[in-house]
Amino acid sequence: MRQNDSCDYGTDLTMNITPYQPAQWPEVWRILEPVFRAGESYAYATDITEEQAKAVWIDAPQATYVALNPVGEVLGTFYIKPNQPALGAHVCNCGYVVGENARGQGVAAQMCDFSQIEAVRLGFKAMQYNLVAATNTGAVALWQRQGFAIVGTLPKAFQHQRLGLVDAHVMFKTLQA
Amino acid sequence: MRQNDSCDYGTDLTMNITPYQPAQWPEVWRILEPVFRAGESYAYATDITEEQAKAVWIDAPQATYVALNPVGEVLGTFYIKPNQPALGAHVCNCGYVVGENARGQGVAAQMCDFSQIEAVRLGFKAMQYNLVAATNTGAVALWQRQGFAIVGTLPKAFQHQRLGLVDAHVMFKTLQA
Repeated sequence: MRQNDSCDYGTDLTMNITPYQPAQWPEVWRILEPVFRAGESYAYATDITEEQAKAVWIDAPQATYVALNPVGEVLGTFYIKPNQPALGAHVCNCGYVVGENARGQGVAAQMCDFSQIEAVRLGFKAMQYNLVAATNTGAVALWQRQGFAIVGTLPKAFQHQRLGLVDAHVMFKTLQA
Repeated sequence: MRQNDSCDYGTDLTMNITPYQPAQWPEVWRILEPVFRAGESYAYATDITEEQAKAVWIDAPQATYVALNPVGEVLGTFYIKPNQPALGAHVCNCGYVVGENARGQGVAAQMCDFSQIEAVRLGFKAMQYNLVAATNTGAVALWQRQGFAIVGTLPKAFQHQRLGLVDAHVMFKTLQA
């Protein structure tokens, strides 16, 4: 996600965000794989297998979505799941990945907007990101523009694959029903 | 856990902390069950089954321990597990429960001490508690005395079974090898 994600947000890219369909997995994996391999934003093992990635992105979450361009190509994807068991399950967690070819066009911002609406529809009262690498300044700025607060910073909690141990933020937003 | 846990910590109770053995499950469950049913500190469903409790306390964690009195009765129990996947797996998470009959004798403090030593031995570099109910003032004070910092507070993130939605702290301590 680039720093200027919001600059053209919603202005020049028509997209349709819909629930993930199994036939879309190859396209979704093509988007996830380079991001997971890079190890600069998600904590998954950089040698995660396709099967493991499917388990965490599709099977484990409550719901997974795709952002599609007008001809139905996948531009990005995100999941929603409860962040904690029962007594913490009113707070959801989401993860978003935008395809390398679709960056800088506001896809992440539109997915984040949509995820909040969908989270409210599913009954969640808040959204939390547990481990946002502080070095991922574009993402941090984007989530802040979306109304998320940095509620705390975990010292050296993320093993960045280029930079070594870096701080990570816990970010949180109360959702309006 | 009581506010004065530390007052008599290490002075009047001889205990032995050892890895959990399967034969101890009935005693461990007797300690966990009332705490999980109360829904005032752990986020598990208050109607969690014994089988589900065993899965989260024994099977899922990397290691589980028991604190025993001199005749081998279980006073308390805790687990250690990585708090995140691979690139966040150098930070561990622990959960501690002290039996109703063993409270106020420093059991939680001794288990917390022991868990930090064990975490370092297992290669962890820090310890994080993700959802400490702010209303659980005894626990918050105990972890602070143990060197944990409140790195952030999640608004209304815990559905306390008597008090309704209450704030929850994220607490963190960097461990010294």
